Amino acid sequence: MSYFDNAATSYPKPKAVYHKIMEAMVEYGANPGRSGHKRALRLNREIYNTRLEISKLFNIKDPMNLVFTFNCTESLNIGIKGVLKSGDHVITTSMEHNSVLRPIAFLQKMGIKSTIVQGDTEGRINPKDIENSIRKDTKLIVTTHISNLTGTIMNIEAIGEIARKHGLLYLVDGAQSAGVYDLDMDRMNMDMLAFPGHKGLLGPQGTGGLYIREGLDVASTFQGGTGSTSHSLEQPDMLPDKFESGTANGPGIVGLGAGVKYIIDTGIENIRKKEEDLTKFFIEEVRKIDGVKLYGPLEKGYQAPVISLNIKDADSSEISYILDEEYDIAVRPGLHCAPLAHKTIGTFDQGVVRFSFGYENTFEEIEYALKAIKDIAGEL
Amino acid sequence: MSYFDNAATSYPKPKAVYHKIMEAMVEYGANPGRSGHKRALRLNREIYNTRLEISKLFNIKDPMNLVFTFNCTESLNIGIKGVLKSGDHVITTSMEHNSVLRPIAFLQKMGIKSTIVQGDTEGRINPKDIENSIRKDTKLIVTTHISNLTGTIMNIEAIGEIARKHGLLYLVDGAQSAGVYDLDMDRMNMDMLAFPGHKGLLGPQGTGGLYIREGLDVASTFQGGTGSTSHSLEQPDMLPDKFESGTANGPGIVGLGAGVKYIIDTGIENIRKKEEDLTKFFIEEVRKIDGVKLYGPLEKGYQAPVISLNIKDADSSEISYILDEEYDIAVRPGLHCAPLAHKTIGTFDQGVVRFSFGYENTFEEIEYALKAIKDIAGEL
Repeated sequence: MSYFDNAATSYPKPKAVYHKIMEAMVEYGANPGRSGHKRALRLNREIYNTRLEISKLFNIKDPMNLVFTFNCTESLNIGIKGVLKSGDHVITTSMEHNSVLRPIAFLQKMGIKSTIVQGDTEGRINPKDIENSIRKDTKLIVTTHISNLTGTIMNIEAIGEIARKHGLLYLVDGAQSAGVYDLDMDRMNMDMLAFPGHKGLLGPQGTGGLYIREGLDVASTFQGGTGSTSHSLEQPDMLPDKFESGTANGPGIVGLGAGVKYIIDTGIENIRKKEEDLTKFFIEEVRKIDGVKLYGPLEKGYQAPVISLNIKDADSSEISYILDEEYDIAVRPGLHCAPLAHKTIGTFDQGVVRFSFGYENTFEEIEYALKAIKDIAGEL
Repeated sequence: MSYFDNAATSYPKPKAVYHKIMEAMVEYGANPGRSGHKRALRLNREIYNTRLEISKLFNIKDPMNLVFTFNCTESLNIGIKGVLKSGDHVITTSMEHNSVLRPIAFLQKMGIKSTIVQGDTEGRINPKDIENSIRKDTKLIVTTHISNLTGTIMNIEAIGEIARKHGLLYLVDGAQSAGVYDLDMDRMNMDMLAFPGHKGLLGPQGTGGLYIREGLDVASTFQGGTGSTSHSLEQPDMLPDKFESGTANGPGIVGLGAGVKYIIDTGIENIRKKEEDLTKFFIEEVRKIDGVKLYGPLEKGYQAPVISLNIKDADSSEISYILDEEYDIAVRPGLHCAPLAHKTIGTFDQGVVRFSFGYENTFEEIEYALKAIKDIAGEL
């Protein structure tokens, strides 16, 4: 099998990830942060280790400002809903995933206004357009770091500077970048970073996180037992407890820690280089094939290893089905939960066939995929 | 080690649970419900199998009315916040976990009123007291099935009948009962059932669920990509998608399915009998030890395998520490995230030492624990 669906979930994970999850479940599968016995304390310590590893990767000064969540969607919902109040205005972009667009659409019914800045046909967002959308009542800017449709890398540093200049909050959706592209909480002007555990960070599904800048007051969405201030009916205000109610995904977080450690040990720059090299090779070769239409900027520095294409006018689902059935190549077709991004690049009806590469992919697999695309294009 | 902390998380899990999780991660660790390739479809199918298994166990007619969540706390938050609006009144009890009490306390700031029905010193709730608390503006009753502090089994059928008689909604917290005590969605008058995956259902952490009765309109808390109606910025209204935004904990849900299958294959009545036999033996013997104070009804039919005790006036944390350090016995001390329940039974200051038994425990382990308690009590 050739797995090119890493933008949906990375696969396979490093062996240490599987190993650590199983070890946590079998050897010390207790409840972290509740009871005080040895196995509970060990799981608690291991979860803290994951906090430290991620803090190292993202240059987070205080690991307690990192909140573990179920997935990036939960992180984004907490971040967006935790700071916006009726009467506030939020700026986002047409390149966002439904995990940003749907919460904002939902909030409109509660009196929150929004502006959706339009990307160009390659999925690029001009930071100037964001700045021009700022109004008196603007509170928050939310953008993705990398489009899950076109792989377009957004200039989050420029957007962060605009946010700071105007005294606005900036929430970044790191769904496609965390673990592959540099995210530096100390240097970059972002107030919150939402990320999944099971994509570039190489952890298991059922994990995600939200970094919240020190001192930023974010309202909690859920309340419940936190194992802290148990005498009180009030949700504790301290981080990370405020956002970590109920039993955590203990073994999952331990596995996530192993994934992040793998990235740090390998070097994120080496992971990125390999993925970008694979991407460059794929782009160079696939654009030679008659009938292939490519999307995204396709230029180094602007293009992440997420490449969407279509073959002639064929339905993207049909192409993906053939790739899967006849070649055992896994890609993702359709609308990718990003309807406005498809409208932006003109693929709302056809969808796209998305190839997303990971560190485990090889040049041989890319060559095999290229041959498959050529065969299919020739037969259409 | 003797593990008596099954009310926090069950341990160990059946071998099939570990096996199925690993198999899912290693063999088909794709994104369920998103892409259409073989591995994604297989994970999707396996998740559906878990829906079917749980539906069988709980006698749920339409498996799509079962929503997967992160944990029982999320399920309870969705259930409580999804139906209450400003001006509504909710009835709950003093025996609830903070996963019920804190969301309700939070909602008070939004104009939702509440009545907390008081339990007796054995943790029993009189359904009549609930009925007497009903007001014109009452919308919802929320109670636990089994107290996580005293193991008191609540008469949820009687409460359900009261709810139906008065046209109210009834949400049950099955945190301590699911997988051990019968829960029948067809026969019992409950509108919603919240449950964790990692306790009695023998699945991994990072899993939970919420059953929503057909036709009941519950507002979504989070919105995001669902892999369905991707063209729309509106959260889909259909179940389970409405409440399952973002990537699910695929391998976790597969493992949960293996846990539930184990319960069905073993027979829930056999699991319950074994746990109740262990509990009966423990109660009979531990009450003979001088200085031991027991809580809860302690009678068959009213007492679940969650037994709280104190030894003389010793701090519960100290006793638990000795049990762990000197005997390798895992229990949970303190307040158990249920402050009002502790006030109800008079242990708010001392806390309790909680023994919670599971199907994997043995009579030999209970004998060993009894000896340890006797030794400690003798030395105090």
